[in-house]
Amino acid sequence: MEEFQIHQRLLDDCHRLGRLPICHVLLHRNAALPWFILVPETMATDLLDLSAGPRDRVMAEAAAVSAFVKDDLGYPKVNFGAIGNLVPQLHLHVIGRRPEDACWPAPVWGHLEATSAYDEQALNRMIGRLETACGLAVVKDDTG
Amino acid sequence: MEEFQIHQRLLDDCHRLGRLPICHVLLHRNAALPWFILVPETMATDLLDLSAGPRDRVMAEAAAVSAFVKDDLGYPKVNFGAIGNLVPQLHLHVIGRRPEDACWPAPVWGHLEATSAYDEQALNRMIGRLETACGLAVVKDDTG
Repeated sequence: MEEFQIHQRLLDDCHRLGRLPICHVLLHRNAALPWFILVPETMATDLLDLSAGPRDRVMAEAAAVSAFVKDDLGYPKVNFGAIGNLVPQLHLHVIGRRPEDACWPAPVWGHLEATSAYDEQALNRMIGRLETACGLAVVKDDTG
Repeated sequence: MEEFQIHQRLLDDCHRLGRLPICHVLLHRNAALPWFILVPETMATDLLDLSAGPRDRVMAEAAAVSAFVKDDLGYPKVNFGAIGNLVPQLHLHVIGRRPEDACWPAPVWGHLEATSAYDEQALNRMIGRLETACGLAVVKDDTG
């Protein structure tokens, strides 16, 4: 079977952290907010086009990442979205939000102007915490 | 049991079309795009905080509306989001999109400048089609 390829634009915008049973877990390079992007291994392009079984399993993985954002990272609110107007490959945004964050109350898309970056130590710490909290499997070929 | 109240801001922004088993179905008054807002009867404020059973049922209703947007209204793409930074009551956006629509490829939130309105005939037609396609139950106390 041909290996699943993550869209280049997502790889450009994100760090690749690892994977859950169905979804690859990416972290947006902009560290102004904890902005996770989940890429399920599917050819469907819209979340709501998935049939019930895969949809429910994908949502369970998104919920696990959301719980991590709230319980481990301490964010009171999570924004969730599946848009894909620019990148057609199905991907889900799971974003920690709090009042007075870098673009509160606007959604991040097209509104987040602040920029910040993760250093290697912060990335490794995030991966370690996701391994513990969500069972993240680290991807060996992470290109940073 | 106290009757579930839809947040006033959602009622101000939307026409109330009816309900599905779990979600109230609203239609944003801006007719530039088919922009449905589903309000599940729950006290949870974030979609991903719902436990698996309710979450899966809510997503099934969102998927039914999405299929309606694609199959009946002829939109090739659906944007889905649960944000709630301004209105804390849980509500899900299901929005029909197509290249060259009023704000393509931007997401609608904070980017949709075009405005248009539904007349009563268009609203009634939409309600009728949703009754047929999704089993929408019309709400008697619709205030328009």
